[in-house]
Amino acid sequence: MIRAVTDNDRMQWQPLWEGYLRFYRQSLPPAVTDSTFERLCARRDGLFGYVAEEAGTLVGLAHGVVHGSTWSRAPVCYLSDLFVGPAARGTGVARALIDAVVSEARTVGAAEVYWHTQEFNGRARSLYDQVGELRSWVVYEVPLTGETPG
Amino acid sequence: MIRAVTDNDRMQWQPLWEGYLRFYRQSLPPAVTDSTFERLCARRDGLFGYVAEEAGTLVGLAHGVVHGSTWSRAPVCYLSDLFVGPAARGTGVARALIDAVVSEARTVGAAEVYWHTQEFNGRARSLYDQVGELRSWVVYEVPLTGETPG
Amino acid sequence: MIRAVTDNDRMQWQPLWEGYLRFYRQSLPPAVTDSTFERLCARRDGLFGYVAEEAGTLVGLAHGVVHGSTWSRAPVCYLSDLFVGPAARGTGVARALIDAVVSEARTVGAAEVYWHTQEFNGRARSLYDQVGELRSWVVYEVPLTGETPG
Amino acid sequence: MIRAVTDNDRMQWQPLWEGYLRFYRQSLPPAVTDSTFERLCARRDGLFGYVAEEAGTLVGLAHGVVHGSTWSRAPVCYLSDLFVGPAARGTGVARALIDAVVSEARTVGAAEVYWHTQEFNGRARSLYDQVGELRSWVVYEVPLTGETPG
Repeated sequence: MIRAVTDNDRMQWQPLWEGYLRFYRQSLPPAVTDSTFERLCARRDGLFGYVAEEAGTLVGLAHGVVHGSTWSRAPVCYLSDLFVGPAARGTGVARALIDAVVSEARTVGAAEVYWHTQEFNGRARSLYDQVGELRSWVVYEVPLTGETPG
Repeated sequence: MIRAVTDNDRMQWQPLWEGYLRFYRQSLPPAVTDSTFERLCARRDGLFGYVAEEAGTLVGLAHGVVHGSTWSRAPVCYLSDLFVGPAARGTGVARALIDAVVSEARTVGAAEVYWHTQEFNGRARSLYDQVGELRSWVVYEVPLTGETPG
Repeated sequence: MIRAVTDNDRMQWQPLWEGYLRFYRQSLPPAVTDSTFERLCARRDGLFGYVAEEAGTLVGLAHGVVHGSTWSRAPVCYLSDLFVGPAARGTGVARALIDAVVSEARTVGAAEVYWHTQEFNGRARSLYDQVGELRSWVVYEVPLTGETPG
Repeated sequence: MIRAVTDNDRMQWQPLWEGYLRFYRQSLPPAVTDSTFERLCARRDGLFGYVAEEAGTLVGLAHGVVHGSTWSRAPVCYLSDLFVGPAARGTGVARALIDAVVSEARTVGAAEVYWHTQEFNGRARSLYDQVGELRSWVVYEVPLTGETPG
């Protein structure tokens, strides 16, 4: 079952979030995680979150960020984070989570959903090749603070 | 001179915006352009804009979008659009415009500035390699409306 | 005007074909060019060709090859060659030629049109990004004869 | 042992074909699979197929499509599908299957063999770098029907 994340999910959401960050060899200060979880539940700053629940256990998460665009009056939606725990992989959970984010984006009138992935992440890209359209873009960043490890 | 775009710039901003869109073989409905210009000047929806002015003539533009992030309490800043008119290329205008966006991002406390460019745009990337850090990302999109041509 | 290539076009088709090959720093034996032109006109071996004509002058060409597929009962169509002479570039001729090949492919019941381009050919890709969908593929070849320079 | 696929192989060929499609997260209507198998055995529409057999068990498959070319009088050969079952990986079966397709292509006078693979499929590419030559191409597609999922 895919559903919006709520305050009550913190205990089970946290290890998924940490597994996701570990995949990217990142860690975040607890205050950042606290803020992120709070804003996902409160749908503040454009953030929203979905979780996949199976028999009372959370097995996956997906986070979106809705934000303005100069190319459309409508906002766009960034699929910021997607993670499925090892035991639930290969069962369609990732796709269902993406579908939930796309559906939410449609509901709020977003013009598109977009996301980034490592070019060499074959497992993820073999799914993304099915549900999205690959763009001819590369991504550059200028880090401004030590806070974002991305 | 790099300065924030204002309501009075519409006549000169418009051909730069159209030149930029033409580069990407895009065109946008006038209502989208109207909305974008208005929001850039009013700094609404996280949008802001800078222009490069030389002897009273606008020769370049850069637009940013500040939005929330799940990886930091601070927002991040998307450098959405960057364009320098043909006559002013190779004179450091693009870099000065990027610097202005980065400076604004720093001022509003953003954790990072990021942008997309075509992987095959050698001219742009030779600059971006100097001012930013290449990420190993590729970008996927799910278009939801006909409004965003990107 | 976009129309099918005919036997009478040889004199004007040839310099376009040679301009196209020169772009790829290739040359082909006259017997290959003779065979290709004959088969394009006769629509033999799955080959077909379109030319763009302006005021009696040919300014562009596009060649397709229809062939079998293991993923569909319907054949697929390879957009093999596309070239627009320097004077006619930027006028929508390339897009009109692609449209003609896609239309022909549709007429013969093909399941898809696909093509290759150099990853660094920004001019071509900025168009292709508009009319087609980028795939996550790379291409490998084993040359078997000296005949194909590709 | 590498040998041409025959009508009698259907029972063992089918799970390999399905494993191959599952790798690409695809499924095809039974009528497409029926048609593909029949044409591979009958060598119709340019299609042909090889299987790897070990102690009476099929452990791999490779399919080719011979089709016309505008760059050579001779046809070219597309290595369309290649799959080795999990238990037989790392034993040289994939290479032997490619060799069989290349050999068949040579026999029918093809000018080259070419194939596509996901840019992020490191396992496959480490083999392809040995047996083929990487081209600087990217691939674009225009899907025309719902039949081809590629």
